[in-house]
Amino acid sequence: MTPSVVSDLSETDLLARIVPLLPVGRATLLPSGDDAAVVAAPDGRVVVTTDVLVEDRHFRLAWSGGRDVGHRAAVQNLADVAAMGARGTALVVALVIPGELPVAWVEDLARGLADVCAPLGVGVVGGDLSGGSAVVVAVAAHGDLEGRAPVLRSGARPGDVVAHAGVRGRSAAGLALLAAGLDEVDDGLVAAYLRPDPPLEAGPAAAAAGATAMIDLSDGLLLDAGRVATASGVVVALDDPATCFRADLDRLAPAAHALGVDPRDWVLRGGEDHGLLATFPAGTVLPAPFVQVGTVRAPSDDAWVGVLVDGVRPTGSAGWDHFAGGPQPR
Amino acid sequence: MTPSVVSDLSETDLLARIVPLLPVGRATLLPSGDDAAVVAAPDGRVVVTTDVLVEDRHFRLAWSGGRDVGHRAAVQNLADVAAMGARGTALVVALVIPGELPVAWVEDLARGLADVCAPLGVGVVGGDLSGGSAVVVAVAAHGDLEGRAPVLRSGARPGDVVAHAGVRGRSAAGLALLAAGLDEVDDGLVAAYLRPDPPLEAGPAAAAAGATAMIDLSDGLLLDAGRVATASGVVVALDDPATCFRADLDRLAPAAHALGVDPRDWVLRGGEDHGLLATFPAGTVLPAPFVQVGTVRAPSDDAWVGVLVDGVRPTGSAGWDHFAGGPQPR
Repeated sequence: MTPSVVSDLSETDLLARIVPLLPVGRATLLPSGDDAAVVAAPDGRVVVTTDVLVEDRHFRLAWSGGRDVGHRAAVQNLADVAAMGARGTALVVALVIPGELPVAWVEDLARGLADVCAPLGVGVVGGDLSGGSAVVVAVAAHGDLEGRAPVLRSGARPGDVVAHAGVRGRSAAGLALLAAGLDEVDDGLVAAYLRPDPPLEAGPAAAAAGATAMIDLSDGLLLDAGRVATASGVVVALDDPATCFRADLDRLAPAAHALGVDPRDWVLRGGEDHGLLATFPAGTVLPAPFVQVGTVRAPSDDAWVGVLVDGVRPTGSAGWDHFAGGPQPR
Repeated sequence: MTPSVVSDLSETDLLARIVPLLPVGRATLLPSGDDAAVVAAPDGRVVVTTDVLVEDRHFRLAWSGGRDVGHRAAVQNLADVAAMGARGTALVVALVIPGELPVAWVEDLARGLADVCAPLGVGVVGGDLSGGSAVVVAVAAHGDLEGRAPVLRSGARPGDVVAHAGVRGRSAAGLALLAAGLDEVDDGLVAAYLRPDPPLEAGPAAAAAGATAMIDLSDGLLLDAGRVATASGVVVALDDPATCFRADLDRLAPAAHALGVDPRDWVLRGGEDHGLLATFPAGTVLPAPFVQVGTVRAPSDDAWVGVLVDGVRPTGSAGWDHFAGGPQPR
């Protein structure tokens, strides 16, 4: 009998199906299979972060296949590594799965992790499996700073250039299309939600180019830019989105029209594109694919720090608070 | 109003309550608060492992408080690090919590993590929070090999001494008492289940003393010793438990009598004590608290590898398969 759901298999047998699908990675000194793995940390430091995806909070089984969820889990973690200016080296994955989940779904999850990790030389070096009532994918990701200082959120200085790498609003638009049952309007946007594809290698490139601050845009441009502003004690002054995000707005226009929404909301407030926002000293030759989207200013007389959009303080919700499960009041 | 359940708080506000409770750690170069943390890896390598605790699979809210769950989550991960011969440096924690969970429970979870980590100089350097229908605590743990080779499961050689550090059967006995509603019979055993306290520093000590193989006993002595036997291609011949685990059997006797069970089952098959089983070249002065419990033999004529107990191949279930949720057939 071919096992169809995970409860047909023991943990050992399920692992035997998953492990061969996972990449070993450039920095892997000892792969999975013992009590722990060993990963190279050539400069004597390791970047570490963790991010979790929860069924019916971050994805729905009806919309996302295992390969999509594996892809997103790897990307959202490696984007945090990239935002420090580091190059990803290894992931470990704790996976909670209901017994009725198809075995093929779990194999696809491994393939989705590998789709992202293998081309980057990132290994999936360990994991843990447990039963549970809903799917949970908790990843910890590791990276190599290659001798550089980490790029913090707190380093932006007045006069710096604000630059963005990646796409804006596509993940939010794709999710909105799925939620409205209009996913046939633009399957490219739906794909951008299901499998975001940010320029992860722009993170170390930004660090090498002298980035003063950087953040992964997981919760929306306004919210995450606000984190840089707060941590740095500055004003992040974004240019008019109609200019600096023109290509994104054009790309989103048909879907926005179909849903009757303003595409600027997706650009400014949409999360999970996992682009990078970085600041650089004025005059820096920006590494591709970064483009300037604003400038850093000193706090004004009232000491207010935050984000301006085309000179104006934005009103309404800034972005997404995953824990509260709804837009977060400013 | 004092918030009583987590849905009363935003993610930001909840983090503001948790983060101050967490230890920074000896090896922490950049603590939590940015996209990722930076941890020292002085010898250019990092040991990495992940283990997850799931509500109603690994613990019940009715039996385990937040402090117990935090303690167990830290211990079970740091035991895997210790079993490689490494010293723990840092944890990251992905936490899924239902909105109706008391805020105090989450604060207690942080305190439980700190109870284990702080005395060892281990930092809790990052985390992620999400809502969900059941509590899930997914930890990734990191360690420093201090220049030594990792101690694998595969290095046991015929003639080696088999040694054990820690206690046997107490966690299983404590769980059995709780399940039977007899937890007043021996609250020391219940405490051993709720907050296992293995000799984590025995891991690096064993490596320094020349251990040839090592494993964390998370799934039971027979099952985990069998993993060493299989990986090493040897027979792990355990002495008579009535001799080598006499103190453990005596400690378990009253609870075993109350429940009408054979305490040898707890010693041989009980999981989650997280003691260490290691093999050493004959004649090694065993580092405390290791004691000899057997010897390694070459496979016999039929090439069988596995575990003998007092010269006999044990029958029945070997231990616990967390995924299948029940004893695993051999």
